[in-house]
Amino acid sequence: MDMLAPNLQIIYQNSRADALFIEQDFLRRYLTGFYSTDGYVVLTAEKCVLVVDSRYIEAARKAHLAEGVEVREGSYTAALELIKGYKRIGVPYPFINLSRAETLKKEGLELVDCMETLKCAMLTKTDRELALIARACDIAEDAFLRLLPQIKEGICERETAALLEYEMRALGAEGVSFDTIVAFGANGSVPHHETGETRLRFGDAVLIDFGCKTQGYCSDCTRTFLFGDDKKHEKFKEIYAHVLAAHTLVQERVTAGMTGHDADAIARNYLKEHGLDKYFTHSLGHGIGLQIHEYPLLSPRKEEILQDGMVFSDEPGVYIAGEIGVRIEDSLYMKGGKAHTFMKKTQKNLIIL
Amino acid sequence: MDMLAPNLQIIYQNSRADALFIEQDFLRRYLTGFYSTDGYVVLTAEKCVLVVDSRYIEAARKAHLAEGVEVREGSYTAALELIKGYKRIGVPYPFINLSRAETLKKEGLELVDCMETLKCAMLTKTDRELALIARACDIAEDAFLRLLPQIKEGICERETAALLEYEMRALGAEGVSFDTIVAFGANGSVPHHETGETRLRFGDAVLIDFGCKTQGYCSDCTRTFLFGDDKKHEKFKEIYAHVLAAHTLVQERVTAGMTGHDADAIARNYLKEHGLDKYFTHSLGHGIGLQIHEYPLLSPRKEEILQDGMVFSDEPGVYIAGEIGVRIEDSLYMKGGKAHTFMKKTQKNLIIL
Repeated sequence: MDMLAPNLQIIYQNSRADALFIEQDFLRRYLTGFYSTDGYVVLTAEKCVLVVDSRYIEAARKAHLAEGVEVREGSYTAALELIKGYKRIGVPYPFINLSRAETLKKEGLELVDCMETLKCAMLTKTDRELALIARACDIAEDAFLRLLPQIKEGICERETAALLEYEMRALGAEGVSFDTIVAFGANGSVPHHETGETRLRFGDAVLIDFGCKTQGYCSDCTRTFLFGDDKKHEKFKEIYAHVLAAHTLVQERVTAGMTGHDADAIARNYLKEHGLDKYFTHSLGHGIGLQIHEYPLLSPRKEEILQDGMVFSDEPGVYIAGEIGVRIEDSLYMKGGKAHTFMKKTQKNLIIL
Repeated sequence: MDMLAPNLQIIYQNSRADALFIEQDFLRRYLTGFYSTDGYVVLTAEKCVLVVDSRYIEAARKAHLAEGVEVREGSYTAALELIKGYKRIGVPYPFINLSRAETLKKEGLELVDCMETLKCAMLTKTDRELALIARACDIAEDAFLRLLPQIKEGICERETAALLEYEMRALGAEGVSFDTIVAFGANGSVPHHETGETRLRFGDAVLIDFGCKTQGYCSDCTRTFLFGDDKKHEKFKEIYAHVLAAHTLVQERVTAGMTGHDADAIARNYLKEHGLDKYFTHSLGHGIGLQIHEYPLLSPRKEEILQDGMVFSDEPGVYIAGEIGVRIEDSLYMKGGKAHTFMKKTQKNLIIL
């Protein structure tokens, strides 16, 4: 069995479709290991065919594709030809657009949703996927370490994000995995602060939520630290210590077989014991893979069972509006029944620049 | 009449729907002038309502929205409530996903495609949109000028892209408008070359295709130049001069009332006269706006009529496989019946670094 690629025949069987028709770039990448802006994957009981146009055909033929993937040159018509004769066609309902769905229906095809099947397969990462996420995490951390000495009084949030993104790109990332959040001072108390023109002053807290992509796979990391200690930070330091404790407890206590709810509760209950749970206004974490928000979800309402091979964020936060915001986030993976962090390069004891 | 915002009532009437239900971020931004990762716009004969959740409600209330846009706090359920009682609901078929479409149908709603109407409205930019594209173009050019002195022998394509993207971000861009293409030497002969690890050598040609976003609006620019003149570039220089002549002719000769086909033919015929048309393997240009590829299309097969307010690329290229690639691209706008370039800061006579 090829541990480096998803098991295409299991995906096919679980979908209960006669053929799968996949047009979305991240799903094509998942199934074949090959990236192109356009193309199609047709998966049947007999075979898996990747259809790409003349721009990509040479690269696709040379690429190390997932086992059993055939390459064919063409575009929509060629892909459609491959599903002629099949009746129930599996497409990912949350991603296929209505124009395409209508076009397929007009061909007399019956559509069924194969996204649940794909989601289940994508929940557990292959060794190849884990290695790519590990690399995206390494790059993010190395870039953060290169950023720190460049942070000076008067720099604005946007410039700081630009520097960090440059370092990630220079270290080999394809790009960011989401819009970098840089929040100075009280801006950190807005969990989805929009990085702007606020300038850094001595004594400001700095919150940076960032990540990058390697071969499509994402990393996700948040660090909060102080730019100088103006001796007014007692409350901040206390909150920081509690968020860090909650963050660390999750990594220590998450085991295979727990639900997303249980994992979330580790952090939430700890913060509750210290009167801070009302300021923890989002979920503990989300799956990470070819998309920055995948499954499993680690949240009070989720009962997904955590298992080896899953990758997710551990990101407790405390936000006191207009005052203080602390979030500490690692990307984790499950192995040997336990949670492990991908992120060992950056210290988590409070940094004071 | 508000020249700064799209005419919502005309869009409504042209859609022939009872209400429009818009969930896609760039379309919400287009209709309201407000950006958020999540939200809904419901447009009826009576009003236009922007529905955003608690994360964005404060910002939306403070924002300078398009005239007549009301803000309401909520999420999907709140938006759905607003279309209850209407029958024919306009949604953008090429962008709405099948999951959402099915959910709406289960509510007893009849869906009709409003994308053609939106596409027509978005074809002609408002003064506000033109100003934002102009700024995205300015930033791209300024960044390119800052990049040039940083290009040294031995730098790789990826590092060059990282530097350019950093400069765009530092100058105020929100991010890139597409994956930056940097191609050294013969890599330039692949129109969609994937920026990689190739290192720059003395005498290499350099092709850079890049752009950025400001408030969602894109710029698109390509420059080709030489890194040192190793005296082997006679053919390159000849081709460069022809591509530049074709590029310039387009800006001189495009007038309102021409079709996309006519505009494409200006460049294609010029290159044909010089025996180069067979190496011009793509279309002359594409519309630019909130998306990097919009309408009009300037291509042999397109009959869209060019008019004042339209924005599109002028990007002839000549690609001799494995040998030479030259592309020169500006973002243009139509005004007073003529084409004008947004890009006046960077020279187009051949640069030799």
